[in-house]
Amino acid sequence: MNVAGKPLRTIWPESDGSAVRIIDQTLLPHQFATVRLATCAAAVHAIRTMQVRGAPLIGATAAYGLALALRADCSDTGLDAAGAALLATRPTAVNLRWALDRVRAVVAPLPAPQRFAAAWAEAGAICEEDVAGNRALGGHGCALLAALAAGRPPGARLNILTHCNAGWLATVDLGTALAPVYLAHDRGLPVHVWVDETRPRNQGAALTAWELGQHGVPHTVIADNAGGHLMQRDLVACVIVGTDRVTANGDVANKIGTYLKALAARDCGVPFYVALPGPTIDWSLADGAAIPVEERSAHEVTHLRGIDAAGTVVEVRVTPPDSAAANPAFDVTPARLVTAFITERGVCPASRSGLRSLYPAVDPARAPTPVTVHP
Amino acid sequence: MNVAGKPLRTIWPESDGSAVRIIDQTLLPHQFATVRLATCAAAVHAIRTMQVRGAPLIGATAAYGLALALRADCSDTGLDAAGAALLATRPTAVNLRWALDRVRAVVAPLPAPQRFAAAWAEAGAICEEDVAGNRALGGHGCALLAALAAGRPPGARLNILTHCNAGWLATVDLGTALAPVYLAHDRGLPVHVWVDETRPRNQGAALTAWELGQHGVPHTVIADNAGGHLMQRDLVACVIVGTDRVTANGDVANKIGTYLKALAARDCGVPFYVALPGPTIDWSLADGAAIPVEERSAHEVTHLRGIDAAGTVVEVRVTPPDSAAANPAFDVTPARLVTAFITERGVCPASRSGLRSLYPAVDPARAPTPVTVHP
Repeated sequence: MNVAGKPLRTIWPESDGSAVRIIDQTLLPHQFATVRLATCAAAVHAIRTMQVRGAPLIGATAAYGLALALRADCSDTGLDAAGAALLATRPTAVNLRWALDRVRAVVAPLPAPQRFAAAWAEAGAICEEDVAGNRALGGHGCALLAALAAGRPPGARLNILTHCNAGWLATVDLGTALAPVYLAHDRGLPVHVWVDETRPRNQGAALTAWELGQHGVPHTVIADNAGGHLMQRDLVACVIVGTDRVTANGDVANKIGTYLKALAARDCGVPFYVALPGPTIDWSLADGAAIPVEERSAHEVTHLRGIDAAGTVVEVRVTPPDSAAANPAFDVTPARLVTAFITERGVCPASRSGLRSLYPAVDPARAPTPVTVHP
Repeated sequence: MNVAGKPLRTIWPESDGSAVRIIDQTLLPHQFATVRLATCAAAVHAIRTMQVRGAPLIGATAAYGLALALRADCSDTGLDAAGAALLATRPTAVNLRWALDRVRAVVAPLPAPQRFAAAWAEAGAICEEDVAGNRALGGHGCALLAALAAGRPPGARLNILTHCNAGWLATVDLGTALAPVYLAHDRGLPVHVWVDETRPRNQGAALTAWELGQHGVPHTVIADNAGGHLMQRDLVACVIVGTDRVTANGDVANKIGTYLKALAARDCGVPFYVALPGPTIDWSLADGAAIPVEERSAHEVTHLRGIDAAGTVVEVRVTPPDSAAANPAFDVTPARLVTAFITERGVCPASRSGLRSLYPAVDPARAPTPVTVHP
């Protein structure tokens, strides 16, 4: 999507094939800077320090990291060492493993001198497939938005509420939950996004607001507390969120607070959509009760970062020094609260049969790779 | 309640009757300081700058402010001028008007030289009645907590979730929603409070966490997003919140985000109680749809204050500079989601008949004064 009027992705190869560039997302929204990754170590650092985040983008970065490792050392030993180093960056991100396995499967049978070029091409293919999938998902979601707009007075603002960041910054481009919004905006629908700030990590206030603003999509940041009230007052046409993992019955694990918005949507008759790339389905889990709870650092609740009047990014504490804090990272929204899934293959009900209508059962060995929760 | 081991109220007269003291709540939780109010102008400043906040405490401060004005000028002119200045501090706080009218009614018929002493005594009576009412409310709520605890293994933690600050800092002492918690704690029940941080103004993280900590009540601060998840995992025995205004049918206006917690409580089978001092009932409004929406400054969403590593309180911006923000201050929780009201007269269903069972209809001229929304 656009940054300062020019199209950009979250990761792109330099033209001479010597390195890839990423946006340092830890600096957003206060500073925009790109980082050159010329070595596997640089890719490891970028993933570990969350300069890149979002499961699809982590996978793409890891794939390029493996390629960069092979340029320096194309031996089996080099391949093994680089794979291990990249895999250890974010142990819970299963598409990190998926991307590494995919590149490895391509290069392992090849003579060593051919490995770098093949890995580089495969990393590029992973990126292109991510964008193509998001574009397809966005198209299906855009049709839903167009239908909602058709029932309203011409030119009336179409308000979409979203939680956390499932935008292009979490992927290679376009995003998942925001892909329908970008396509609708680019096609002239008068979309406007309510951006949940998404405490405690503020991915909405920091990332979603930034990327929508850079692309010129009208949006308004709100406290996470406000969404229910806006739905009560008919100020939300639909909710679209992403997901970290969907169980076989359609239960949805996503950023903490998603469940509360789904409840409000149901209570107010507002459609609640989950943007769901196929690989996010975890067929191995029957329902959401089986999803383990990830508890993150209390520091994320007690402290936060912002920019002061002098333009310096500082971290401040907001709680009393002796008060404990708890920080569950995600919650589970029961399938019964989800109006529909928007996938790259179309729209389906949030149920096992709905999912199977788009993703028929396959040989278990070839089943889609489950994706675990990521911040 | 206790501060650093010693009992304290939010407002108290100096022993020579020359002034009152308050806690400067704008400095909490990072600094504890008291302020001496020796003039009406000082009381006006304290209310306007939110050194004191919470409807009952604003009323008590205004009453003392009027008394202080009469010490300097006990004429009718002085009384009128002081009343007008105090009333203008927070135009929407109806118990500001109620407290001023009450003191005025006492002093106006008196000879001027007797007015100061009478006003001072009336302000004191307003404070004592607030505390007595909160103690009665707390006793009824404590009985509910004891019943919940009785159904659990001995010594098992009794988790109460609360939103915003309806603690002793919002009143003269004890609080409303937290009065049952303080009484239960003091009686030895193993209570523990989940404290919603309550964005955007962070009254939970700043005030509720501080006052619970000072009194020694176990508590844990959470993002506002976390409550639903905790209820899903059976980690909340009940929710207790305060209210700014309850309409005749039992709909509840309270801090933004309350509605979301009520929905989760209903979905998870968790009792949702509203602590309701009688004067908070607005019999003039049939239901919550009639309550006007108060939109506060976007700055409260885009910026927040905390303490940096050097111990300096600083304000930081968390959003991109060009992103708009919206800040509805409260929402309306429908009566159907409220398990019961806890009042100073007992516990009742959230309905017109329930409210009338405790507050029978009276001559309209003597109906309880409605209280409007305050931050």
